[in-house]
Amino acid sequence: MILDTIVALATPPGVGAIGVIRVSGAKTIEIVNTVFKGKDLTTVKSHTIHLGTIRDEDTIVDEVLISMFKGPNSYTKEDVIEISCHGSQFIIQQLIKLLLRKGARLAKPGEFTQRAFINGRFDLAQAEAVADLIASENESMHSAAMNQMRGGFSQEIKKLREELVHFASMIELELDFGEEDVEFASRADLKKLINHLKSLIARLTESFTLGNAIKNGIPTVIAGKPNAGKSTLLNALLNEEKAIVSDIPGTTRDVIEDVINVDGIAFRFTDTAGIRTTEDKVEAIGVERTYAKMKDASVIIYLIDLIHDTADEVQQQLGYLKDLKVPYLLVGNKMDQAKPDIQELVSQENALLISASQKENLENLKDALKELVSLDDFKTGNTIVTNLRHYESLIQTNEALDRVITGIDNEVTNDFVAMDIRNSLHHLGELTGEITTEDLLDNIFSKFCIGK
Amino acid sequence: MILDTIVALATPPGVGAIGVIRVSGAKTIEIVNTVFKGKDLTTVKSHTIHLGTIRDEDTIVDEVLISMFKGPNSYTKEDVIEISCHGSQFIIQQLIKLLLRKGARLAKPGEFTQRAFINGRFDLAQAEAVADLIASENESMHSAAMNQMRGGFSQEIKKLREELVHFASMIELELDFGEEDVEFASRADLKKLINHLKSLIARLTESFTLGNAIKNGIPTVIAGKPNAGKSTLLNALLNEEKAIVSDIPGTTRDVIEDVINVDGIAFRFTDTAGIRTTEDKVEAIGVERTYAKMKDASVIIYLIDLIHDTADEVQQQLGYLKDLKVPYLLVGNKMDQAKPDIQELVSQENALLISASQKENLENLKDALKELVSLDDFKTGNTIVTNLRHYESLIQTNEALDRVITGIDNEVTNDFVAMDIRNSLHHLGELTGEITTEDLLDNIFSKFCIGK
Repeated sequence: MILDTIVALATPPGVGAIGVIRVSGAKTIEIVNTVFKGKDLTTVKSHTIHLGTIRDEDTIVDEVLISMFKGPNSYTKEDVIEISCHGSQFIIQQLIKLLLRKGARLAKPGEFTQRAFINGRFDLAQAEAVADLIASENESMHSAAMNQMRGGFSQEIKKLREELVHFASMIELELDFGEEDVEFASRADLKKLINHLKSLIARLTESFTLGNAIKNGIPTVIAGKPNAGKSTLLNALLNEEKAIVSDIPGTTRDVIEDVINVDGIAFRFTDTAGIRTTEDKVEAIGVERTYAKMKDASVIIYLIDLIHDTADEVQQQLGYLKDLKVPYLLVGNKMDQAKPDIQELVSQENALLISASQKENLENLKDALKELVSLDDFKTGNTIVTNLRHYESLIQTNEALDRVITGIDNEVTNDFVAMDIRNSLHHLGELTGEITTEDLLDNIFSKFCIGK
Repeated sequence: MILDTIVALATPPGVGAIGVIRVSGAKTIEIVNTVFKGKDLTTVKSHTIHLGTIRDEDTIVDEVLISMFKGPNSYTKEDVIEISCHGSQFIIQQLIKLLLRKGARLAKPGEFTQRAFINGRFDLAQAEAVADLIASENESMHSAAMNQMRGGFSQEIKKLREELVHFASMIELELDFGEEDVEFASRADLKKLINHLKSLIARLTESFTLGNAIKNGIPTVIAGKPNAGKSTLLNALLNEEKAIVSDIPGTTRDVIEDVINVDGIAFRFTDTAGIRTTEDKVEAIGVERTYAKMKDASVIIYLIDLIHDTADEVQQQLGYLKDLKVPYLLVGNKMDQAKPDIQELVSQENALLISASQKENLENLKDALKELVSLDDFKTGNTIVTNLRHYESLIQTNEALDRVITGIDNEVTNDFVAMDIRNSLHHLGELTGEITTEDLLDNIFSKFCIGK
């Protein structure tokens, strides 16, 4: 079906010791063999490596290692060759241009993975997990993507699907008997089955809040009155993070602005652009202004100023905070110079006492932050939905299942029930890629990097 | 001798489809095998590839491909494993940290190549060429580095050395006979041999001017009176260059400021910082100011303004230009509106006529530029010295050879002659790495990238 042979740089652009160029398609071996001087590649076994040179006529472009993967034992299930060359941009460009001249074409983003999906190496949810895995920046993102790529999510969906198919076939069998009014399964049992399915879907859709937080970081706001120490705390948390970024050369990366990792969970501080610069100035609008920000957060770190706040002010702030119904962490800052009555007051509210400027008790603050977000699914290795597309398909499946139950309860005819079940199966099929459109695939794979 | 096992990321940092982690040393297989779940790596053959997972206790860090290279059939001649993993910075960090915990240590820059050198895979000049190859940005840099890496340079040196060793052994044989006044080779023949060596060295050292130009770009100056069109020409040449940079995704790079490639030769425009911005302003100092810049250039592109320059002015400028004794390209700009008498005048001087603003005849200008630099050695595939260290060793060898000849002419005793020959051999040995110091090696390899 797919006849053309694609080529792309699979390693990041830039100068490194080596670069890897990936070629996949029916003519992979033929094309590479015309430019490779070394062993005859048409005769070598899969999963073997061969040293030689790539030549453009008489010019040696590079000394390379050829890794041979013969379909279907390859990433794409097609014949794949990976050319490991010297990591010079010039050489990489020359090699790719040469392969293009010899009949390969440039791969589109994600095209290797798309072929792997089309050739049945994995389903769509797994293919999408490959991109998530590459983009993973901390332990929880990595863990969720790895679980999904290795089929955890797909297996749950498969279970759901099998049970639904069983259900559908029973109903359709009844349809075959037309007017005879047979019932192969009691409607009560079927409703029980559907409710079981719905509870499975509910668990998965509920996990999306966590999944989304894992993927994008948990939206967190630091709030408090002016001069409560918001900027000091934020900087202390971020600078500590920067300091613990590994010093393995070549793997250090810019720490993402305003994100801290606590045991592999990312907390993304939102609306902090102003905090870091404006807090020293007198902020006339005060608490009122941050009210809206706080409402949108998943987690609030609320700072009480243990030196300057009065008891009335504390009570007023606590009132605000509790009204929001957003999980919050009450923090008494400036513990080193706290007024005893205020300290007593916030302690009754289970506040955590810290000193942002002295960097005291910040570890406790992080631990408390972590406890505030429910990570049971993450801890137990349960499947977590991290992808909005998957979430929406699950919601649509659930709605179709609801219609099935309503149909049964209202004693609609079997053909309507069967249609709603098929509808559920359709939405589950979108999830795994059994039902796709070209637009959908293009949309999914265009977000991949080149060479994957 | 070398017992520890080193690890580093061999591909560029950043997000890509895959990353490759390289491990080398006596314990490579043992260390990787403790974390790899798949085939038992102690039982697999060299140059084979194995799919499996890397695990940190029970956690799957990644699904990887293991490429096995058993010493001495590897880059370093030690056991080497390359781990091809998903190109996530997080995963790469986790994998490297895991291998460090299991007993590997982080490789220093160039340490893999240093081991390849120490273990006799290639000589020092070849090892240095590896770094040049990775840094190569155009065809001539690439070609010179590839020739050097594949031993072209080293073979020339080896020839020189063998002849010298033969010479030295004859002289030292005479020494053994002490007072007997034997002569195993006629001094005339020996001088002939040394002169032959010196002519070989002369060719190599002469090639350094070209080699240096290839490596760093040929220093080129655009000169001319204010408003002759210098900035227009520079921008036209550079913009065209930017446009032809390949659009292969992932391999495009920033075009180096003020360098144009003409058929693989880099011309580096020096002192252009002012040109591009100041030319529109009236430049009071005019030609005088650029006189010093022109003197230092290897090539001058001199612009005559075919509209505004008078015949006297042209003659005056030509006088300047010829006095400099720097290769120059005389260019008549604004050919589309040229004054006939001025056009006639510069044509008599073999000027090339262009219009920088209309981008006319720029290809001819480039061809002429290329002809201006002598590239015979490059064209014929002769060995070119590109490395200052090599150049200096050759100069020192040559000086020692001169002392040998002077010694013979002045009939000094054989032991002095022998000493000078040994001295020549010493300097040649520095070049190939037969004679090294730790400082020298550290200095050379610290310029490599990590993972090479």
